[in-house]
Amino acid sequence: MCTAAVMPGANRPVELQRFSAPELEPGGVLLETVFSEVCGTDVHLSHGRLAGVPYPIIPGHVSVGRVVDVRGEPHDVDGRPVRVGAMVTFLDVVGTCNACWFCLVAKMPNRCPSRRVYGVTYSANEGLYGGWSQLIYLKPGVSILELPATLTPERVIAGGCALPTAIHAVDTARIRLGDRVLVQGAGPVGLSAAVLALLSGAGAVYIVERHEVRLAMAREFGVDEAIRLDSSGSNGHVERVLALTEGRGVDVTIEATGVPEAVKDGIHMTRDGGRYVIVGHYTDHGEVGINPHTEINRKHLEIRGVWGVDFSHFHRMLRILDRHGAKVAGGRGWEHMVSRTYGLDEVNQALSDVETGRIVKGLIRPTAP
Amino acid sequence: MCTAAVMPGANRPVELQRFSAPELEPGGVLLETVFSEVCGTDVHLSHGRLAGVPYPIIPGHVSVGRVVDVRGEPHDVDGRPVRVGAMVTFLDVVGTCNACWFCLVAKMPNRCPSRRVYGVTYSANEGLYGGWSQLIYLKPGVSILELPATLTPERVIAGGCALPTAIHAVDTARIRLGDRVLVQGAGPVGLSAAVLALLSGAGAVYIVERHEVRLAMAREFGVDEAIRLDSSGSNGHVERVLALTEGRGVDVTIEATGVPEAVKDGIHMTRDGGRYVIVGHYTDHGEVGINPHTEINRKHLEIRGVWGVDFSHFHRMLRILDRHGAKVAGGRGWEHMVSRTYGLDEVNQALSDVETGRIVKGLIRPTAP
Amino acid sequence: MCTAAVMPGANRPVELQRFSAPELEPGGVLLETVFSEVCGTDVHLSHGRLAGVPYPIIPGHVSVGRVVDVRGEPHDVDGRPVRVGAMVTFLDVVGTCNACWFCLVAKMPNRCPSRRVYGVTYSANEGLYGGWSQLIYLKPGVSILELPATLTPERVIAGGCALPTAIHAVDTARIRLGDRVLVQGAGPVGLSAAVLALLSGAGAVYIVERHEVRLAMAREFGVDEAIRLDSSGSNGHVERVLALTEGRGVDVTIEATGVPEAVKDGIHMTRDGGRYVIVGHYTDHGEVGINPHTEINRKHLEIRGVWGVDFSHFHRMLRILDRHGAKVAGGRGWEHMVSRTYGLDEVNQALSDVETGRIVKGLIRPTAP
Amino acid sequence: MCTAAVMPGANRPVELQRFSAPELEPGGVLLETVFSEVCGTDVHLSHGRLAGVPYPIIPGHVSVGRVVDVRGEPHDVDGRPVRVGAMVTFLDVVGTCNACWFCLVAKMPNRCPSRRVYGVTYSANEGLYGGWSQLIYLKPGVSILELPATLTPERVIAGGCALPTAIHAVDTARIRLGDRVLVQGAGPVGLSAAVLALLSGAGAVYIVERHEVRLAMAREFGVDEAIRLDSSGSNGHVERVLALTEGRGVDVTIEATGVPEAVKDGIHMTRDGGRYVIVGHYTDHGEVGINPHTEINRKHLEIRGVWGVDFSHFHRMLRILDRHGAKVAGGRGWEHMVSRTYGLDEVNQALSDVETGRIVKGLIRPTAP
Repeated sequence: MCTAAVMPGANRPVELQRFSAPELEPGGVLLETVFSEVCGTDVHLSHGRLAGVPYPIIPGHVSVGRVVDVRGEPHDVDGRPVRVGAMVTFLDVVGTCNACWFCLVAKMPNRCPSRRVYGVTYSANEGLYGGWSQLIYLKPGVSILELPATLTPERVIAGGCALPTAIHAVDTARIRLGDRVLVQGAGPVGLSAAVLALLSGAGAVYIVERHEVRLAMAREFGVDEAIRLDSSGSNGHVERVLALTEGRGVDVTIEATGVPEAVKDGIHMTRDGGRYVIVGHYTDHGEVGINPHTEINRKHLEIRGVWGVDFSHFHRMLRILDRHGAKVAGGRGWEHMVSRTYGLDEVNQALSDVETGRIVKGLIRPTAP
Repeated sequence: MCTAAVMPGANRPVELQRFSAPELEPGGVLLETVFSEVCGTDVHLSHGRLAGVPYPIIPGHVSVGRVVDVRGEPHDVDGRPVRVGAMVTFLDVVGTCNACWFCLVAKMPNRCPSRRVYGVTYSANEGLYGGWSQLIYLKPGVSILELPATLTPERVIAGGCALPTAIHAVDTARIRLGDRVLVQGAGPVGLSAAVLALLSGAGAVYIVERHEVRLAMAREFGVDEAIRLDSSGSNGHVERVLALTEGRGVDVTIEATGVPEAVKDGIHMTRDGGRYVIVGHYTDHGEVGINPHTEINRKHLEIRGVWGVDFSHFHRMLRILDRHGAKVAGGRGWEHMVSRTYGLDEVNQALSDVETGRIVKGLIRPTAP
Repeated sequence: MCTAAVMPGANRPVELQRFSAPELEPGGVLLETVFSEVCGTDVHLSHGRLAGVPYPIIPGHVSVGRVVDVRGEPHDVDGRPVRVGAMVTFLDVVGTCNACWFCLVAKMPNRCPSRRVYGVTYSANEGLYGGWSQLIYLKPGVSILELPATLTPERVIAGGCALPTAIHAVDTARIRLGDRVLVQGAGPVGLSAAVLALLSGAGAVYIVERHEVRLAMAREFGVDEAIRLDSSGSNGHVERVLALTEGRGVDVTIEATGVPEAVKDGIHMTRDGGRYVIVGHYTDHGEVGINPHTEINRKHLEIRGVWGVDFSHFHRMLRILDRHGAKVAGGRGWEHMVSRTYGLDEVNQALSDVETGRIVKGLIRPTAP
Repeated sequence: MCTAAVMPGANRPVELQRFSAPELEPGGVLLETVFSEVCGTDVHLSHGRLAGVPYPIIPGHVSVGRVVDVRGEPHDVDGRPVRVGAMVTFLDVVGTCNACWFCLVAKMPNRCPSRRVYGVTYSANEGLYGGWSQLIYLKPGVSILELPATLTPERVIAGGCALPTAIHAVDTARIRLGDRVLVQGAGPVGLSAAVLALLSGAGAVYIVERHEVRLAMAREFGVDEAIRLDSSGSNGHVERVLALTEGRGVDVTIEATGVPEAVKDGIHMTRDGGRYVIVGHYTDHGEVGINPHTEINRKHLEIRGVWGVDFSHFHRMLRILDRHGAKVAGGRGWEHMVSRTYGLDEVNQALSDVETGRIVKGLIRPTAP
């Protein structure tokens, strides 16, 4: 038996429930959860903003755990066996079919209709498919990665679901050495993107954000300038970015806010011939007015939407954390992005703290006493 | 002495004036105009919709002419001398500085602030710098191309200013063999883009347009389906394109309308992971509401603005016309795109015909009796 | 019971054997073979030039057949059921694991070590996994495509294994409208690449080849010039290509010969800053001397190796054949590439004809009376 | 009057000569040289290995100097005037025509036949067009960059001609966060490329080199492993790189040796589907045997030659040095790459020291007492 936090439906508080440990299928793996996390998507889930979610669910998509049981001979991507006792993480997406038009022709497994997502599209009635639980059942075929001895669970979960997403965005942005980069929004995805831009040798990295706690953390992670969003209508933040870039705007902007108006703003702060990457709009917050002449055609602009991740981003997350994770934030390490760790009985508080911007990133430790 | 058509200012009729032939500088070339054209930009100029135009001007940017005088030893891009009697065309842009940030660092000579445009940013008071004139003065440094013997002036001017722009758009769209392509708008740029998509081996080419005369011409040029724009609000054209593409939308859409709402429409008709190229917005017609979640981020869409051309596109125009220009439109040739040819005394009529969509493409023949 | 042609080992004649029809697994499909083909790889197989081939084998990788039995509910890539009576083709590669480093991280399923290839890496002792057989067993998971009503089996098998490979090469070559393209070798892959280059709107397509029968066919398919390989040491073919391109060389060269010296030759015929794609070296024919200074560095050259195909290329083959297959070769259609069709009892003759260059492409019709 | 070091011809010692200060043309600038450098190209020049060099020449292509005279109103790329007293550097290439096929169609100004190179293709009889001189004459049109106050002449010349070349190579290599990178050769270009790879967030950077002094310096600049070239034929360095990369090879290799055999070696150390960039072959050292099957086609490899630089690389050099130049080599700064500074009377020693690998990078200080 184990305890899990269950989100019963939209706008209803999360409750603790007891579950039996699952019967493992051949190739299945059972984890004792060490850390899961609470992210912006969890807030959206708590308000019913995503379509097709089979409530009740156990939230928590990216997690780190210790293997407590295996059946058969599951292997990782490098062909090494997954053994009891190993500390692992796993891609939260399962069931990519490798047989449909999205998987095989468009080569967008991130849009495969068969894929299911731990913590989002599995019902709690189906089993332990979310990280806000003392046990997680990894079905056969889940892509598992064992943590190298040099990486702690804390550092990996600090990367969490935001870091692979940010890797995908930064790859798409094609930052070159010396490029000036603007990130809009200093939540986990935006902050991760800003740190990755710094690690990519950007000439300068600016961040625009409205919450003070996030601006402060962006500074601690070394951005060149953390600019408070001016929502007075006078657009002081836009003027500041233009002043920092000879009036031209930055070479690359990465949007990570989810606020439609940010797209219009961000385009103004990007130079002619620059690149604008939208990675923050995972839910629908409506439209923004865009002028195709002044904002796209005459600017000769490239705009790219980035949806989700595939396993390659997740795989590179570990390599990037192993390489760079210790030195960021002035040596405090990637785990400095974590504001607070919550027990299973505190998840409602965690959701509220993320929603109001009181924290940057919150962890869930299901086995906390 | 020669006659030229002069646009005196916004919303004032074009008038004929007499000019003296210019004194040639070393490297300068004088052309007797064989054909110039009237395009959508000329309509915008006649209404004062472009900023910074030094009225009075002689309109007419792309032209074909016969060399009647040279001074010094001007050469073409392959180092061959430009001789009296040769039939030539020239890139309408002059003065790209090759010394500024746009030219040297951003590598966007199409945005160089020093560049000036024949027929647009030269005043008639400065000289014969437009094609609606019996003579055109090519300043030293203008990029000149001699027509190969296999290309008639009619075929080259039928490409005109629209074809290099369409080449730039189609290059940016990266059409692959078998891709399904949608073009929005069947004016000269849209129609040229559609023909280029056909020539690129597209799997299907659809065009959406509101004027019947243009739909008919698109069919004559061989598009798979010319779809009438449904402006009733029921969006029949969107439904039709989705029905033609298993509900997914096309792989590539090229926007060539200048209508902001077309951008929203066009994105709906483009598949997830597709490419959307905006080349029609050369003037400001306001904003359109875009939903960053449903229309960019979740679609994993690539959007590209394409501004102007450089000499490489103009150079390839001749090669493309020479290769493919005879066989298009069922063997009627690229010149089938021309609806009517006007004398200098008919240019006001030509502007009106373009504006109201009564014609697809109109030529100006300044030496007509 | 059915008859199949079995290659018992290296340098031993192919023999006919009788096999029982297989027991279908759930998701399995049984085909009655309409056409298979004989290609250069089959010649290499007959001489034991590929490593790890589990002789005896039933050769024949790409095939077209009619469904005579199904078990369970196999579906195609668009989710449509595969039904008895349907005319289908299938990707010859099966078992791509979608779980290893090649599949998930490098995104090169064409290099997945788990993949097996019909007609190459299955033993005849395992079952009917090759096209030189009256029946072919499609294991669960094989990617099946139903032929549209507009495509005949003859036209599809004329594309065969060469066309998807050529699609991959031409995609990699990034041919633009007006580019001049050279193809080295007019076997099925080279000839397919040349036709695809023509369909892509190339400015000119040249082919260099030593066999007259192939040069003649290249001309029938419309290449601008089919140049006989000058193996006298005086390199007349190189001089000819340079003469056709102002001494600069072509924009793009696609190598499809398998002869190491062709690589050196081909680089000389490619312009500075051009692209050179190697797709012809599927077996080891030794080294060629390359000068990194004159042939790569100073030329600012891009060289790309292209290995195999994935399902996207196979999927696009049908779309390309459906679109363009009827009009090529002056309206004779893609099937004009077929020189001769052989019965199962003539496969040794077929292998000999391919090896000696007497034919361009040979089909196998296993059900021939 | 001023003193310059003149290379009279191949294999003859450099001699000091006295020159008159030039008469400035409008737009011309006169520099008092602060630093120039001696690089591998200068060694090649001293042996007559480059074609078309108009001996006698004043060597020294990249230099830093103080403006001592201007005529007219020369401006930098951002439109700011060049004033007496300013500390500047300049792109060593002048006369790119912006009118030929290379400049306008192929967009390879790095291959423009009109371009001339300071220190290489100007004769000493024409004037002060090399950095091994107390004065340098910058002709009108030379692209000049003023050093920001935060950059010392020492740091900029430590970048010198190698750093823009390395920027071009690293751009072409498209290093992504976490990629493992191998650099072959630890001369100034290779060492610069290795440092740029580190700054780009590579997952690991390895260098292979034969000189101990360069291996030691590579370690001081922080490469993960500096591997001694094993020229015994047992290829210990290849085995070491494969052992570091699970037997697969690195994601990206940059060749900076000029030794043909290094290309073969380097390909073996690069993974399937990886990228191989050749930037070290600026002179002809003959051929190497390459197997197109095993080394290019089956590896699905991308090989790119990188020739020279354009102004954009030079412009970014200053931004990169300003951003990252202080922190490299454990805080010793980019100038740590300089092994020794020579006076004009020591240039023959400098050439010998570079040729024998006794130093990594040598400076020339023409105004040394």
